Amino acid sequence: MEFFKPTPESIPPTGVSYRLRIPKGLPVHRHALNPLAFVLRSAQIYPDKLAIAHPDVPHPVYYTYSVWAQRIQNLAYALIQAGIRPGDRVAVIAPNTPVIAEAHHGVLAAHAVVCPINSRLTPQEVAYILDHSASKLIIVDHEFTHLVRGAKARVIVSNDTGRAGDPYEDFLSVGRRFSAEKGWPGLEWEKDEEAPSALCYTSGTTGRPKGVVTTLRGAYLAALANAYETGMNRDSTYLWILPMFHASGWTYPWSVTLASALQITLRSVSYPHIWNHLLNSGVTHYCAAPTVQIGLINAPQAQRLPRPVVAIIAGSAPTAHLIRELEKIGIMPVHVYGLTETYGPCTKCYEQPSWKSLSLEDRTKLIARQGVSFLTADETRVVYPAKEGDALDAELADVPKDGKTMGEIVMRGNIVMKEYFRDTEATRKAFRGGYYNSGDLAVMHPDGYIEIQDRSKDIIISGGENASSLAIEQELSSHPDILEVSVVARPHPKWGERPMAFVILHPQKAEKWAGKHDEFGKDLKKHARARLPGFACPEWVKVVEELPKTATGKIQKVVLRKAVAKL
Amino acid sequence: MEFFKPTPESIPPTGVSYRLRIPKGLPVHRHALNPLAFVLRSAQIYPDKLAIAHPDVPHPVYYTYSVWAQRIQNLAYALIQAGIRPGDRVAVIAPNTPVIAEAHHGVLAAHAVVCPINSRLTPQEVAYILDHSASKLIIVDHEFTHLVRGAKARVIVSNDTGRAGDPYEDFLSVGRRFSAEKGWPGLEWEKDEEAPSALCYTSGTTGRPKGVVTTLRGAYLAALANAYETGMNRDSTYLWILPMFHASGWTYPWSVTLASALQITLRSVSYPHIWNHLLNSGVTHYCAAPTVQIGLINAPQAQRLPRPVVAIIAGSAPTAHLIRELEKIGIMPVHVYGLTETYGPCTKCYEQPSWKSLSLEDRTKLIARQGVSFLTADETRVVYPAKEGDALDAELADVPKDGKTMGEIVMRGNIVMKEYFRDTEATRKAFRGGYYNSGDLAVMHPDGYIEIQDRSKDIIISGGENASSLAIEQELSSHPDILEVSVVARPHPKWGERPMAFVILHPQKAEKWAGKHDEFGKDLKKHARARLPGFACPEWVKVVEELPKTATGKIQKVVLRKAVAKL
Repeated sequence: MEFFKPTPESIPPTGVSYRLRIPKGLPVHRHALNPLAFVLRSAQIYPDKLAIAHPDVPHPVYYTYSVWAQRIQNLAYALIQAGIRPGDRVAVIAPNTPVIAEAHHGVLAAHAVVCPINSRLTPQEVAYILDHSASKLIIVDHEFTHLVRGAKARVIVSNDTGRAGDPYEDFLSVGRRFSAEKGWPGLEWEKDEEAPSALCYTSGTTGRPKGVVTTLRGAYLAALANAYETGMNRDSTYLWILPMFHASGWTYPWSVTLASALQITLRSVSYPHIWNHLLNSGVTHYCAAPTVQIGLINAPQAQRLPRPVVAIIAGSAPTAHLIRELEKIGIMPVHVYGLTETYGPCTKCYEQPSWKSLSLEDRTKLIARQGVSFLTADETRVVYPAKEGDALDAELADVPKDGKTMGEIVMRGNIVMKEYFRDTEATRKAFRGGYYNSGDLAVMHPDGYIEIQDRSKDIIISGGENASSLAIEQELSSHPDILEVSVVARPHPKWGERPMAFVILHPQKAEKWAGKHDEFGKDLKKHARARLPGFACPEWVKVVEELPKTATGKIQKVVLRKAVAKL
Repeated sequence: MEFFKPTPESIPPTGVSYRLRIPKGLPVHRHALNPLAFVLRSAQIYPDKLAIAHPDVPHPVYYTYSVWAQRIQNLAYALIQAGIRPGDRVAVIAPNTPVIAEAHHGVLAAHAVVCPINSRLTPQEVAYILDHSASKLIIVDHEFTHLVRGAKARVIVSNDTGRAGDPYEDFLSVGRRFSAEKGWPGLEWEKDEEAPSALCYTSGTTGRPKGVVTTLRGAYLAALANAYETGMNRDSTYLWILPMFHASGWTYPWSVTLASALQITLRSVSYPHIWNHLLNSGVTHYCAAPTVQIGLINAPQAQRLPRPVVAIIAGSAPTAHLIRELEKIGIMPVHVYGLTETYGPCTKCYEQPSWKSLSLEDRTKLIARQGVSFLTADETRVVYPAKEGDALDAELADVPKDGKTMGEIVMRGNIVMKEYFRDTEATRKAFRGGYYNSGDLAVMHPDGYIEIQDRSKDIIISGGENASSLAIEQELSSHPDILEVSVVARPHPKWGERPMAFVILHPQKAEKWAGKHDEFGKDLKKHARARLPGFACPEWVKVVEELPKTATGKIQKVVLRKAVAKL
């Protein structure tokens, strides 16, 4: 920290007021919910507390809450000066850095809509999103400028230095000049809590990506639930592993500031850096998909942690192996579930006190379920999926709570998106029956917990039976030599489809099976037969070095299916 | 617990659904905030977890969340069957019991408004409130039936037994008969989150009590903040010391269910019972005014606690003595501030990490301040009080943040009441300048923390100087022999007014000063002169056995002033 000084423009004037102007004529008792409130109150209460640290880069930066709030205000004024008007979209393409965290606040303060774009997309995909969102300004990290070549909108490049001379810092300086005379009271509090907060595009594995419109109210309530459900408070330190461009980082940019906690940003998933922070920076919370968690426990630095750390897991269910290994080193897994359309997590698998006495295997089966709606989320149901010709306003019917009947997960309430941007038809279809239709297939257990079986396209129809590739993966992953496994359907002349398993061996077991992958395949099939019905046992097993993954760490079954189709 | 069985009507049917009917035509992404949501989700997630215990009575009761939710549903249907329509007021007169906690949920489920009435009022005062609120039904505890004799509305008596034959239980049974066929889905979710949730009357030390109308939205958000700010979760046990009839128990009836915690109800403030639960029932949280906290630490049972307990303190500021004594036995004081008009607490004195290194005396001075707006509360300001002839819509001006200039505390936002019931004029005046005008006088410190000086009427104008009776009390209470002290103005021929102190001696010091109260008075005046300006030193000191207190434990200065006027 001793080598870093925030730019003079980042230093707030003395006597700063954190109160925005309240529009005239509003009722005294009604204040529009807006997650911008959180950073303002943290800056008021803990002005000198570290808000954000960005250490593992050539130019590390560290901002206290008061300094960071000033930068957010500068950004807001700079955007307004640049012609950004209420409701305009401002795109951000950046890895986890203070810049993208700032955008999640400063853009809102300008009454504009933050549009974080996945930096791992192709220039064509980015161009599509920039065009579809009609973003009027683009903030881009220097590593990703190739993604916005030819963009029509104004581009502000960040060199991720936080130092004078960085184009992004020059941009902020404009805002500071403007803000010095006005401060926060020069900005008006957005009076419509249903105004859009973010526009996040789905990964679009099928068809064009869709733009998910979320609201200020939803972001406020989701951020609240995320902080409460994970026990984040001012003594917490949140480590950014989950990319912030993914569903606005599941609203954690706001949850962390709500808690007045410290956030540490990492440009990429680097296990040495992660372990360094787990051991030496007081990290208490992080979010990550299971594949990243697997990398984490298998890193050479892995060791028992000096304090409990909460690992928020979503993307797919944690396996018994993963849970055991995490708990062994003091990491407490919290299994949550959600989609971009639900602001990231909206359910949580609440561990019952009685589960403590179960065997790890039995406990894991319970923890691997997606659970129930979390604090501010409202309804999550499993209903019979729409049939061809069903009216869009037909009443939805719950599947029985038997843990067997497959249905579709649907949600409604404050933690559901407002709409798909500029796509009335897709919105209408997604909101069949007055609920958001997730496309995730699940069962409802007698205790009211949902459990995902599969995305509809991930179901394997083997000999007329519906086999869940997820359920097969859960069982296969209990084989002691397996690090990761993914199962997809492969056409079969007799059975229609049969499961095929792609396996990454545990590093310490790779040698054991070197040159003997056929034998391993037999061993795994035997393991499967002891645990699964015949139609769900893998017909083929292929040992691979790595699995294709999305930018957010999800295994891309679509790639595996394409590979399988060529066999 | 082995001797208690809930009535058969309290047992939910198998396969109960906790989902209310959603009115047609509402947007998918918008769900009306309503604190009823909390008990429903706790019942869904933890059906067999103990929700409420009422142990220290002839007929103890213990309800799990699923059983308690069923009773709440029964109450809702019973009320509807009894002719209660949306918006009707249902009065409750009861000490802390499951009945009054139930009313805070069941009345809301019937879309009615809960009107908790202070059981320590006179029959005339109660009659006024029943009449003014036009309560259509009264639920009354057997100990307080004398308060409702002659009431026009239907009266349901609770014998506080939870057993068949209790008239209240008979009333619930009607609801259960009705509900068996319909369940929760037979009730509609209130679609207007601004519908009233409660009608709580102020204590009315000056003039008629006023009816404070709160909303479902406000109650939801206040309950959320109270749970988050005090760290309540499913492992917590909340002990009811604060009366639930006081500002709806500061929204804790909903905070506790939000947290899926256990609540223990006590009919009265009994230190042996309180200590029994602190020591043996796993209590982690309670709310109480300083006077009750003083009684608690001075009880013969007082001892170091086996686990940390959070004591939420409001009503007046904790003294250094109180903080030291609480912390010594493992009780962590959290100082909050608010009024009935702000759902109870709406600010919190956030302790800064740096305060840990201060002397207790210096730390106490900081902790004794009322702090800043808490999580979901919005603005709290200190402004120049209205002058005669000021327009009600005049812009309010903040006093400087100098810790000296006295102004009035005003608030706006989601944790401010909607209005005074049937009193447009009082509402208009209270909302001067677009803020709720609290009537509490305070200064704003440079760090943004507010500190109450006094209610305007508690200021002592001594020799033309404004002396804060609270500030005087703070200094006097540092005298080692004082248990409690209250200071009021007494007319003085030369100075206009001069402070008079009423003192309760510490039990262990009473003997030391027996027969020597004059000497004690001199000692105290000497103590005061070392700490206070001359005009603020007490001119008179009177040792008393007890101080007059309101039902909620606040010292009634109005009574002391009347006594002084006769001297």
